Amino acid sequence: MRKLSLSFVLLFLAATIQAQDINLLPPEKTGGKPFFETVSERRSERTFVKREMPLQTLSNLLWVANGFNRPDKRTAPTGMNRQEMELYVVCDTGVYFYDAQQHLLKLIAHGDFKAALGQPQINSSAAVSVVMVADSDKSSIENARISTGYISQNIYLFAASEDLGTVARGSFNRDELSKALQLKSNQTVMLVQPVGYLK
Amino acid sequence: MRKLSLSFVLLFLAATIQAQDINLLPPEKTGGKPFFETVSERRSERTFVKREMPLQTLSNLLWVANGFNRPDKRTAPTGMNRQEMELYVVCDTGVYFYDAQQHLLKLIAHGDFKAALGQPQINSSAAVSVVMVADSDKSSIENARISTGYISQNIYLFAASEDLGTVARGSFNRDELSKALQLKSNQTVMLVQPVGYLK
Repeated sequence: MRKLSLSFVLLFLAATIQAQDINLLPPEKTGGKPFFETVSERRSERTFVKREMPLQTLSNLLWVANGFNRPDKRTAPTGMNRQEMELYVVCDTGVYFYDAQQHLLKLIAHGDFKAALGQPQINSSAAVSVVMVADSDKSSIENARISTGYISQNIYLFAASEDLGTVARGSFNRDELSKALQLKSNQTVMLVQPVGYLK
Repeated sequence: MRKLSLSFVLLFLAATIQAQDINLLPPEKTGGKPFFETVSERRSERTFVKREMPLQTLSNLLWVANGFNRPDKRTAPTGMNRQEMELYVVCDTGVYFYDAQQHLLKLIAHGDFKAALGQPQINSSAAVSVVMVADSDKSSIENARISTGYISQNIYLFAASEDLGTVARGSFNRDELSKALQLKSNQTVMLVQPVGYLK
C-alpha cells in the first residue's frame, strides 16, 4: 500500500515537472529578523549590485510573497479567498510562472526579457523581478489592486528581513511584458517588483 | 537656551494636543516574532473575545500599519511618496484620527459609532477597528487601492506577531461611516479592519 502511494506520487511529479522547470526548496518557516525590526527597516531601494540569488532565498521570497501557508489559503489574503493573483519571475535566464501550490517555477520561455520590465538600470541589476498578475475571471481589477498591495508589502518586508533591496514599479511596458509572460486576455500585469543585493 | 527650547515645546504641545486626544506611547521598534514565523501565521480571524487593548499595543499597531519609520516616509509605501492614506480608529469610546507624524490619536467624536462599521458580530467584539481612508487630492483611487493593501497586510502581520485576530472588511455602511468620521468630500473609506483578542 505504501509502495503504491509512492509510485503514484512519482508518476504525478513526472507528469507535471518538466526538465527546465525549477523545483524550489521548501520555504523556511522560522527565522528572519524580529517583526518590529523588520517593519522599522521597510524601505524602497533602487540601486543593486548584480549577484545571483541562492535557490533557498528565491524559494523563501516567493513563498512569503504569495505562497500557501495553509492547504487552501495564502500568505496574502484575497476577498472571498478568490486567489486572483499569480506571480511570474523574470531573471537573466528567462521567464517563469510561480506554481504556488506545487512550489515550483514553471518555465515560460528562455531568453532575456528584462527590457519589457522597463527601467533597465533598476531591473537589470536586480537578482530577480517579481511580476504580479491578476486574473479577471476570478475577481475584479478593483479587488486585484488591493491584493497587489498585500503581496508587494510581503516582498518589501521579506527584503527588510533579509537585508535585500526592493522597490515596487508601475512603469513597465505593458504590451511587451504581457507578450513575454505569454498572458491570456483575462490576465493583467499589476506591478513589477525587482529584488536585489545592496552595495 | 535649554529652558527656552523646552518652553517652546510645551507651548507647541499645548496648542496641538487637546485634553481628550490620546497621546500614544513611542512604538516598540524591536521584538516581535521572527519574520518567517509571522508570515507563516498570517490569517483572517472573525471571532474575538472582548478585551481592552493596552495603550502600548495600540501605539505599536498604528505605527506598524502606517506610521513613520523615517522622518518623511512610512512603514507602508505610496507611489511617489504621496502618502494619500490616513487611518481612523473606531472603538467603544469614540472615533479618533491617527496623526502619524505626531503619533497621536485626535478625538473626532465621543460615542458609539460601531454600527457604521457593519458586521456587528465582528466589529463589536474587536478591541478596535482601524479604518483606512484615501485622500483623492493626493493620489487617484486606483493608487489608493494598492496602498490600502500595503497597510492592511501590515495589520495582518502585526496581529500574527502579537497573537491577535484580524480580518479586512469591505462591507461597511459607507454613508454612515463617512459621517461618523466627519470626512470631507475628497476622503473615501477604503477598508475597515477590526483587531481583537482570540479565544
